[in-house]
Amino acid sequence: MYFSKSFIPILKNNPTEATIKSHQLMLRVGMIKQSSAGIYSWLPLGFKVMKKIERIVREEQDRIGAQEILMPTIQSSEIWKESGRYEDYGEEMLRIKDRQGREILYGPTNEELITDIFRSSIKSYKSLPQLLYHIQWKFRDELRPRFGIMRCREFYMKDAYSFDINDDEAIYSYNKFFLSYLRTFKRLDLSAIPMSADTGPIGGNLSHEFVILADTGESKIYTDKRIFEVQSDKAILNKENLNDLRNKFDKYYAVTDEKFNKKDFDEKVPEEFRLSTKGIEVGHIFYFGDKYSKPMNASVDYQGKKEFVKMGSYGVGVSRLVGAIIEAKYDNKNEIMKWPISVAPFDCGILPLINKNDTKNLDKAVKISNLLKKNGLDVLIDDTEENFSSKIKKFNLLGIPFQIMIGNKNEGDIFEFREIGIESKNISINEIVEIIKKKKV
Amino acid sequence: MYFSKSFIPILKNNPTEATIKSHQLMLRVGMIKQSSAGIYSWLPLGFKVMKKIERIVREEQDRIGAQEILMPTIQSSEIWKESGRYEDYGEEMLRIKDRQGREILYGPTNEELITDIFRSSIKSYKSLPQLLYHIQWKFRDELRPRFGIMRCREFYMKDAYSFDINDDEAIYSYNKFFLSYLRTFKRLDLSAIPMSADTGPIGGNLSHEFVILADTGESKIYTDKRIFEVQSDKAILNKENLNDLRNKFDKYYAVTDEKFNKKDFDEKVPEEFRLSTKGIEVGHIFYFGDKYSKPMNASVDYQGKKEFVKMGSYGVGVSRLVGAIIEAKYDNKNEIMKWPISVAPFDCGILPLINKNDTKNLDKAVKISNLLKKNGLDVLIDDTEENFSSKIKKFNLLGIPFQIMIGNKNEGDIFEFREIGIESKNISINEIVEIIKKKKV
Repeated sequence: MYFSKSFIPILKNNPTEATIKSHQLMLRVGMIKQSSAGIYSWLPLGFKVMKKIERIVREEQDRIGAQEILMPTIQSSEIWKESGRYEDYGEEMLRIKDRQGREILYGPTNEELITDIFRSSIKSYKSLPQLLYHIQWKFRDELRPRFGIMRCREFYMKDAYSFDINDDEAIYSYNKFFLSYLRTFKRLDLSAIPMSADTGPIGGNLSHEFVILADTGESKIYTDKRIFEVQSDKAILNKENLNDLRNKFDKYYAVTDEKFNKKDFDEKVPEEFRLSTKGIEVGHIFYFGDKYSKPMNASVDYQGKKEFVKMGSYGVGVSRLVGAIIEAKYDNKNEIMKWPISVAPFDCGILPLINKNDTKNLDKAVKISNLLKKNGLDVLIDDTEENFSSKIKKFNLLGIPFQIMIGNKNEGDIFEFREIGIESKNISINEIVEIIKKKKV
Repeated sequence: MYFSKSFIPILKNNPTEATIKSHQLMLRVGMIKQSSAGIYSWLPLGFKVMKKIERIVREEQDRIGAQEILMPTIQSSEIWKESGRYEDYGEEMLRIKDRQGREILYGPTNEELITDIFRSSIKSYKSLPQLLYHIQWKFRDELRPRFGIMRCREFYMKDAYSFDINDDEAIYSYNKFFLSYLRTFKRLDLSAIPMSADTGPIGGNLSHEFVILADTGESKIYTDKRIFEVQSDKAILNKENLNDLRNKFDKYYAVTDEKFNKKDFDEKVPEEFRLSTKGIEVGHIFYFGDKYSKPMNASVDYQGKKEFVKMGSYGVGVSRLVGAIIEAKYDNKNEIMKWPISVAPFDCGILPLINKNDTKNLDKAVKISNLLKKNGLDVLIDDTEENFSSKIKKFNLLGIPFQIMIGNKNEGDIFEFREIGIESKNISINEIVEIIKKKKV
């Protein structure tokens, strides 16, 4: 892809309306464009990152045996009246009347709709457990949308739901998602802590928030530093093993301010391990038993009688993660962003120095680009006539993790090559290909 | 995947509320579930088909150099007032007031929003052409939604937009999409005719509808049969070549009833080539010049003055295509569906005969399934205790193109194998793998 033909509208300066890093950067490099208050369009650069995050989220849902479906954005008010949440939900729910005067709404979450789908589809306990998920746009009519896509109105979310015959099985399902979230955030190169959390309007009595550390986070968090050392790599999909895994995390104090209790914190956490800082919520899981299945009559036949299914729900903010990764990775002072290669919009940038009427370096760039493409790498060539220093400055903001410089002094197959944030070196193009490919695996 | 654990809720009989084939079949095999009038949830079977269609549509957009973005579902009324369509659009537009009383709407189409994005991003003619597309949910508040997902309210659509400096370039962009649509429908194994069409509320004076033949179609069509013989395989992305391609189609009479003129039809089409039948619209492309760019002031600098860009728009109904393929392929009388392998929910079904306490055939099924998976094939094992004839009946409806039967009389590696709709034969499992893989390429 040539930069001049790409739809990446870059701003010269940080937009003044943005106050946090992710919002500034996303507007500056044209990842998003605001269309109205709290509502954004995703331009190619932002779209590519979000799609790669979505793919990782999807793969980790599939890996624990969840099945993907897709519920609509618009829901009927009827099912919300059945569960009793229609009145409770408040003004954040976007309530709509259609042309026939029927009450409909833009779904802020899907507990009711999935329960409705379940109850009309599954009759026997033999079909349990069922883990279903979808990745769909949601709408919450925030009074004061802010921080770009971090607290916006229309947002892209993965929400999953589990259905089991009893508490014991339901906790097993809960723990599967617990594991899948640890795996997901790890692949995004984020260090996310699972914290005991309040259940809020979703309900239930067991809940974890997954929070990443960031100075600009909206949640205050209090945690025992040792929680960062807990390993989850060897976990397997087995009841006992997953229980152990969760216990390993749960034994460390880690809460957001809603659950914070100073006395507990001081008692349970030795002083040297206490950490109180800010974080960003990137996932939230809930176990709420029959809170929805009972009023909505979602049951299965079990040993001759009706049993209300036990449910949990599991959310990851897919669009929010784009911003969260920036908050975690962007070096604002030096204006350097480096996307984890798993979600980078391109694998490598090629920056040829181009003078009018001399296409020598551009020709070289195209040749290198073809070689990289043959190796399965996605490349952006800066074919503008800017000088090196403005090209590098621009590419440092784009966050493509690798850069190849093509100046007038190149000799043979040796080029200046840089992994963003690390000093450049002159190496052969074949070595470059090997380095990037190795990183990408 | 085991059938007993899958979320594929099958109905015993055709649902009475459905009157056309696709609606009946999709409800019957649990591809979709209605959530409210004209609004559906996509269950795993339907979801998989739709995602595969989406992927083909995406690949063919990328292939002509279009860049993918994602615009939100909710739009501000402001831009629609700028273009003058806010009042015109009528009651099919779902108009909403948010909690602050602002007029917003659920986008039925995106000409205004994309024009707004373009005008704030692109300043120079050097960045043209720009071909942008997105695949997003739309809403049209149909007075009488019907025929399942064929005429529903919330639907999934790919819409693309082109921006060029003058008519000549703009027609080139138009023709690129013309080609990409021919390629898309071909990969879906559909024979779609490009027909001269009215432009309706989108505007402009050049437009083609892509229509597939189906008795249940809502459009009456009149065409010269020779249009089916036109070849497009060798077309390349070159101005002249694409002009020739379009001329080859345009020289044959092919219109929907809105443009039908009996005198023309009789004059231009020799009697033996006349075909008047019904069809389903699966794509629609428009060229409308500066209809939106002028009122919305979307211009670029060109030779020292402002030039309004010339625009076109290009839609494919992704969710509708699921239904359209069923209308084209489903043999209602014999209750046999066969998905094109490019979009089939699974590549192969495995149907073991299972008696209580005897897992021999199920074990064989799992072994075969592992072999097929190793070969990159996606498999559904029917692990229920139903007899052969009900399993086959069910799988004929699911439409998975291949079936392997495992009965008690199997010898060694030889199994009964059937491509749906064709007589079965007893062949070795290795031959089976080769046949499916060959078909899948």
